[in-house]
Order: sequence, then C-alpha cells, then structure tokens
Amino acid sequence: MKNAVGREIPESLLKNQWKEARGGKGYEVYQGRNYRDGTYIRKQGPRTAIGEKPQESKLLPSVREAVIKSGLKDGMTVSFHHHFRDGDYIVNMVMKEIVDLGIKDITIAASSLGSAHDPIADYIEQGIVTGIQTSGIRGRIGDVVSHGKLKTPAILRSHGGRVRAVEEGDVHIDVAFIGAPTSDEYGNARALGGKSDCGVLSYSAVDAQYADKVVVITDTLKPFPNFPASIHGIDVDYVVKVDEIGNPKKIASAAARMTQNPRDLMMAEATAKIMAATPWFRDGFSFQTGAGGPSLAVNRFIEPLMNERNIKMSWAVGGITGPICDLLRRGLVGTIVDTQDFDVAAIDDIRDNPNHYEISASEYANPANKGAFVNKLDFVILAALEVDVDFNVNVITGSDGVLRGAPGGHPDTAAGAKCCIIVTPLTRGRMATICEKVVTVTTPGECVDVVVTDYGVAVNPKRQDIIEYLDRAGIRHMPIKELQEKAYSMVGRPEELQWKDKVVAILEARDGTILDVVREIKPYSL
Amino acid sequence: MKNAVGREIPESLLKNQWKEARGGKGYEVYQGRNYRDGTYIRKQGPRTAIGEKPQESKLLPSVREAVIKSGLKDGMTVSFHHHFRDGDYIVNMVMKEIVDLGIKDITIAASSLGSAHDPIADYIEQGIVTGIQTSGIRGRIGDVVSHGKLKTPAILRSHGGRVRAVEEGDVHIDVAFIGAPTSDEYGNARALGGKSDCGVLSYSAVDAQYADKVVVITDTLKPFPNFPASIHGIDVDYVVKVDEIGNPKKIASAAARMTQNPRDLMMAEATAKIMAATPWFRDGFSFQTGAGGPSLAVNRFIEPLMNERNIKMSWAVGGITGPICDLLRRGLVGTIVDTQDFDVAAIDDIRDNPNHYEISASEYANPANKGAFVNKLDFVILAALEVDVDFNVNVITGSDGVLRGAPGGHPDTAAGAKCCIIVTPLTRGRMATICEKVVTVTTPGECVDVVVTDYGVAVNPKRQDIIEYLDRAGIRHMPIKELQEKAYSMVGRPEELQWKDKVVAILEARDGTILDVVREIKPYSL
Repeated sequence: MKNAVGREIPESLLKNQWKEARGGKGYEVYQGRNYRDGTYIRKQGPRTAIGEKPQESKLLPSVREAVIKSGLKDGMTVSFHHHFRDGDYIVNMVMKEIVDLGIKDITIAASSLGSAHDPIADYIEQGIVTGIQTSGIRGRIGDVVSHGKLKTPAILRSHGGRVRAVEEGDVHIDVAFIGAPTSDEYGNARALGGKSDCGVLSYSAVDAQYADKVVVITDTLKPFPNFPASIHGIDVDYVVKVDEIGNPKKIASAAARMTQNPRDLMMAEATAKIMAATPWFRDGFSFQTGAGGPSLAVNRFIEPLMNERNIKMSWAVGGITGPICDLLRRGLVGTIVDTQDFDVAAIDDIRDNPNHYEISASEYANPANKGAFVNKLDFVILAALEVDVDFNVNVITGSDGVLRGAPGGHPDTAAGAKCCIIVTPLTRGRMATICEKVVTVTTPGECVDVVVTDYGVAVNPKRQDIIEYLDRAGIRHMPIKELQEKAYSMVGRPEELQWKDKVVAILEARDGTILDVVREIKPYSL
Repeated sequence: MKNAVGREIPESLLKNQWKEARGGKGYEVYQGRNYRDGTYIRKQGPRTAIGEKPQESKLLPSVREAVIKSGLKDGMTVSFHHHFRDGDYIVNMVMKEIVDLGIKDITIAASSLGSAHDPIADYIEQGIVTGIQTSGIRGRIGDVVSHGKLKTPAILRSHGGRVRAVEEGDVHIDVAFIGAPTSDEYGNARALGGKSDCGVLSYSAVDAQYADKVVVITDTLKPFPNFPASIHGIDVDYVVKVDEIGNPKKIASAAARMTQNPRDLMMAEATAKIMAATPWFRDGFSFQTGAGGPSLAVNRFIEPLMNERNIKMSWAVGGITGPICDLLRRGLVGTIVDTQDFDVAAIDDIRDNPNHYEISASEYANPANKGAFVNKLDFVILAALEVDVDFNVNVITGSDGVLRGAPGGHPDTAAGAKCCIIVTPLTRGRMATICEKVVTVTTPGECVDVVVTDYGVAVNPKRQDIIEYLDRAGIRHMPIKELQEKAYSMVGRPEELQWKDKVVAILEARDGTILDVVREIKPYSL
C-alpha cells in the first residue's frame, strides 16, 4: 500500500504482528502530518513492585545480580539511553551478562545505538538479539541489520516517536538499564557530579516511568537524597555501582570549534539571512540547531542580526552545544531547554547556569502528549544525507543503502517548527545530496520548508508565505528540481541501489505509522 | 468483619461497589502494616488528548469555558490540591461554574478540604456533590457529612494513600483543576513567582499525570517556558487566567512563632531527649516534624543536642516551616525535601535556597511506589486528637464524633519512620487525649512507637529496642494504660458517643484497605 509520501509499504507488514510492535494492533501507513491530532491515546499502565516496607538500600553487588533479580527472561525487551554517546559502556556491559546467563531472544529498545555498540552485532548474528528498536543505527549493527541478520525488522523511531511508542505500548520495556553519572542507594540519579557526566538523562525519563523493572547503574554513589534527581528513586528497583559507566572523552566532544570551511560558513550565513527575512525572527523567537559544522555556524551569523534589530531569543532547545550556551551567557538567549549535550561546554553550562534546564524527551518532542516544545518552535536548522525534489529527507541510509544514521529529533522538530531549514552541500564526494528520490524517507517533505545548499536555496512550494518573505528581502531561490539537476550534472545520476525483498528496518513516523521501509541490501558482488 | 486494629467493618462495604471506589474491585479490611509489600500494582493508563498539531496557546477566557471544554458531565470526578490551604479560591470558583452549568452527581477528589470550602457543604445538601474523597475534612463539610447528608460515604486517605489510589484506579479523575501561582500559556506551572505563592505543587503531580483532562488556573501568566515547572505543560489541556487564585494571607501563616507555653516546651524537650537516646540520632539522621506548637518546638531542643555531639541532619521532609529552614541555613540540615509549606518563611526558603527541593506526594509517601522518602525516615514527631491504650491514633474525629481533621501524612510517616513519636497533652479541656479506645483509628497502633505527654512517656511494648534505649539513658516511661487512667482520673471517663448505623466516611489505610469507618452521629437532642 502506498503511503502519503509515495512509498510502497508491504501489506504483510501491516498485518504482521510480531512481538510487542504496535501492541498487536498492526500498522497503518503514514497518512500525513498531524494525522492523529485531537484523537486520544490510552497510555499503558505499568505493573511495578510495591515497596511499602522500608528498606535502607537498593544496592546490588553486580550487574549480573541485577539481571537475575530483575527477572529477565527469554523473549524480553531491555532498554538503554544514549546520553553517553560514543563513550557508553552500559549497553555492552549489561548485554554481556544477559548473554553469559544464556538468556536469548532479546529485543534492545534503546533511545539510540552507535559505534560504541559494535559487539551487539555479534549477538545479532548469533541470534541472541532478535529485535532492535532505536533511533540511531550505525557501525557494525547497521551493517548486519542491512544484510538481513536481525530476526525481526529493526524499528527506527524519532526521539519523540519513541516516547509515544513506549507510552502507547507499541514497545513494552521489561527491564530498563539506566546508566547514571551519579546515584544514591535508592536510585535518585543525576547526570552531573560524577566522573562521566553527560549533562542530562532526558531520554531515560520514559523508561523509568514505563518499564516493569528499572536498574540504575552508576560509577559514583552519592549520599541520599541525590537531588535534584533526573531519575527518581520511586521508579527504581535496583542500583548497581560499577567501576566505570563510560569513557568521558567520548561522551562529549571538547568544546566544538567553529567551522572555518568557507562553504559551511557561506551556507550558515545564507541560513541566518533567510531566518531574518521571516516574521518569526522577532524578539522572543525560539530556535534549535544541530551540532554539525554549518548548523553550528548559524549561531555565529544570527548574533549580529539579533543585535542589529535589538532582539533576543526567548529559548533554545535540543541537543545542546557550547555556542548556544555562549549566547545564553551573553544574555541573547533567555532559557535553554536541554535533552542532550554534545560537548563539554554544554555540560558545564547546565551544571552552572540556572537558566539552562533539563527536559524529558516527552517534553521535547513527543507527538502524543498535550504539546511538546517542538510545537512552539519558530526555527529549526537541520542537516541531511539526502533531500529529494519532494523535499523528503533521508538521514538514515547511506548512498550504499546501508543503515548508518539516526532520525533523532529531525522529524519531530521539522513537524513542529514554523520554519524548518535544511542545510546541506549540494554534493558530498561524488554523491548528489539533492536527488530525485531519497533512498529512505525519514522526514516527510511536507515538514521541510527551505533547503540551503552551497549552490542555492529552494523553498517548498507549499510554503508560499516563506517564498514571499524571501522575495521581499531579495533573497534568491530556485525550484529544488534545478538544484537536483545541477547536482546530477556535477556528479552524475546515482546508480539504482539493488535490494532484496526482505524488509530489514521499518521507519516509523513519529505518530507510529509506517513512513518507509529499508530492505536487505544486495551484496556488491551480485 | 473485624480488621487488624479490631474495628468492625460492615460486610456491605466490602461488597458494595459504588462509583469508582476500589476500581470496582471491592474492599478488603486492614490486614496490618506492609501487607502489600513486594506484591505488584498495575498502574492506570490515562486516556489523554493528542496534541500533535502545533498550537500557540492553551489559554481559555474563563473557568466556565474550561469546564465546558473539558467535557465535564454528570457523574464525573474533579480534583483539586490544598496548597492554598485556608486561602484557596479555586475549589469554590470551579464548583460554582459546575453547579451553574447544571452538572450534577459530582465527586470531589481533593488532596484536602478545609474551612475555605464551606460552600461545598451546600452542594452536598443539595445533592449535587455526591462523593468526597479527601484527606482533610473540616468545618461545614465535616458537619454535613457527619450528619449523613453526603450520598456516598466520604473516602478519607493519607497523602501517600491518595497517590496510590489514583495510580491504582481506585479513583479516576476526569478533570483536574490545578491552581497555580504562575503558569505560561502552555500550562507549565510553578508555585513561585506570583502573587499567591504556595511554595510547591506536590499534591497535584499525580493529578496532572492521571487525570483525563487537566486545567491550570492561575492569576499570574509568565512567558513560555515558565521553568523550572512543577506541573508540566505536556500534561495540561487548558490554561485559565483569573483575577485571584487565593488569599495570600491565608495561604501561609506569618513566620511561626515558637511556643512559649511551658507545657509544650516541656514535652518538646522530653521528645528531643528521647530522640537523642536512640541510635538513629547520629550524623546524617533524617527527620520530620509537624507545624503544631510542641512539635515545632522540638526543632529548638534538638539543636543543642546535635551541636553537643557534633552531628548534622542529612535531610528533613514534610510539611515545612521556618524553624527547619533556619537549621538548613545554619548548616545543621543538609537538604529539605518539601511537599507543603506552612509558613511564609518556608516559601521564602524554597524560593532562594538551592538545597530546599520540591518533591511530589508520591516521592513523599506513596506506599505503592518503589520506596518513598518516608521509608528512609529516622524520626517523625506527630500530634494526635486521641491515642488509645493500643497506641492507635485518631486525627480525624473530634470528641463529639464529628469529622474535623485530616490523616495527611500521619499514617504514612508513622508507617515508614524508624521511630514515630506522638506528642500530645494528656487532656485537652475536659477531654482525655489518652483513652481506652479512640473514636476513629487513623494511624494503626503498630506504627506508633512512643507517646510523650505532659504527665509522662509511654513506649509501645512492640518496641522493646526503644524501651531498652530509654532505660539505658535513664528516661522514665510508663505503661500507656497508666497514662489513660491518669487522664480519666483528671477529667472523668468520656461518655459513649451515640451513632446511627449509616457509614458516612471510610478511613482507608494507606494501602487501600479499610482501617475504620465513621458513622452518622446522633443529634445531641436524642
């Protein structure tokens, strides 16, 4: 069945009801933006242990003991967060114990998985891990999934979509393992004050609330109560102290250095000018930008424009980096609301700055609550692996068709923001970024408003208002088809990828419908 | 059927399934402390509206409009918090609109009701309000309920028991009305920064999470995002701005003046000495005391004992007053965790002091989560209307049998604390406080460890450990029977109260079983 972005979704997926996916309800295909607005969600009611009798401590001597006590069994789902990013030790540490205990048919429901988790690829190949639900999928995991080694299709969700899925019961977490830079013996856990600080624990909030069992793993015990807590002890069954939960050097990059690449700077400047040409660039505007070179550089170019008009940003949201914290410190931003910290400067800032707040992933981006922060967002600046002539964006599959990306907050912010700007070079190496048809749709074109490249700007024809604003400001733009043709003229038309029939991954739209599927890649040798 | 505190509970109540009470499961009688420990609770899954499509504001022009939009209908349950105490305008304001709209058969599920809510008594008499679920019940409401005017028995719960009941579905809140000193247009609400600050919104947390519809009512709108928020916009459907949500003068008393009553001081000093004789009076101990004269004065007497031993309190919890905040500022207390503020000094302190934190009522006292703060409590000092020779405490019915009190956190802290001390004069006016049998059991005797009166101290024989500690410290104590006999010798044996058969109120134990019932009082004239 064809969905609202023109993708053919196999009927078998819509009927097929494996494991907990869609709570046995089966799937719908993507119907378009705001399809479920105003309808109702029946949230899940977790079954949790009653701790009526006072106990002094929930400390267990080892991760293995916690796995055993949690009642983890064959066929269950475990969850993790990705705040430790490439420095994460938790996923591998826990999975090793699960595998050593002979427990199998495990689904990993992580907020994201990355290169730190290559060992999981082995468990997939061995048939021990049979389900993956995540935002990011990269490295060896992406490889083995793309080559059809995972027993069930991986389910890929945006950050907001994950919260919705947990709340709605599309995925039921049996045991959540939450790595925490600090915790007390009752599980009041923080992302600050330890030796592996990650700033916030936003993605874990929903796991703590909805999992049957919750295990906090820390390397730094603090006296009770460890406040202000991101994860609350009332939701935690067990606490384990280990030597190291992560590698601090890989959790956050050093303070991001601003790009000096002239192409990036040019695109960033163009983006800032486009922002300034719209009516939303007014006192009190709100803003999110990514951590990539050109996106980050936008911070630098909006500052003089803000000063020129004597306006301030009310709030910034998202994955946070040093440059936006600088603007906060200089009084140009009122408040930062934070779901993830990309660099040391951002972690330092949330530690010290009273106007820099942690929010949960639900507050950030959940499409099924009563209004997330993304719903109030004026501008979001995003990157892309590919954008097609229908403005559909791909941030998950490489040009070889292999899984190596993450929807993250991309579809959430694009859907919510009044003005979503994609910044991307026209070509990367010998690949056209602006193309006829993206390999995989991760953000629907109807949510993308402007595309800024190093060869020109295109505005989604659905946004006649923005076209007018740019025209009025004398900012040149062109049909996106022209950008695509320019790209193809430079690097040639990309070869068609060769796929097998087997669906290896499902791209869920944030509302839980199917936006696209990824199929098993045919080896090059064929 | 007789329960574990020897009270006869009518069989009809155990089978009777009115409205939402016990989720249609019927009641059990009280089985004893920690009866449900280690069993499982299946939390309710609220049905809430999906706010996928961005909207700029949830503001409605009036409370009436919010009542209409919320879909409130005959037979529904509405909820309120009591952080504005005697200064609350919200309950009456909302109920007036409901009544004016002709909606009937309403259950009010408040965290507490007080003298500010006398007008509700009229709605009870008119048969419009047919159910009351609350902790406190006083003034005219207590009167009409005691005289059999409410259609269904009032259900009285502790603060922790209320959270459990909402989570478990014993009471389903259709619409929560949350008065908030400040809010933004999305419902991010705080208890500070307005003109009617109440310090915290702890009791409302569960309402916001579990009600189908949530309405925030404020008199002070703040720019978005109004952070750090106690109630999160993601849980809020509508926001209403009114002129005044409460009378600040009655929300919090002026800074509490320490009692000069020699009897109170003597009891407070005795209490402090008893605390100091136990092993829990060590560096890092935890403590809760009430706002009454002798309880409050304990703060003054423990200070020199702490200094003498060079020990500090790790944390204090509960309804908070100025004196404990003074100890925090002087470095004698590490952290205050706060569910309610009784005086202006406490509100000022949480506004300014980074070691003074708001916690939810679930974190405070819910017996069905994975471990509330009360479970880690060393000492709690509590008051009582009556204590009987089995150490059962009554804090709900007066000596005339009329409802005029509140279990509040009394049963929760008594059950959790290692050492629960009741401080009460032996007699009040011409009534014996220490009696043969309390009118109503609100805290079971098995949770009460020591009773301190102006005529001597009694220790629960179940606590042989404490008896030893006092003996070792040379602190005199006597059987509680002697205290009761002394009281009767002074003021005479109380006359038996005359009751009708009709049950007008059910005292739920914190675990949801029936601890006691209150029957309709026979008019004096009979």
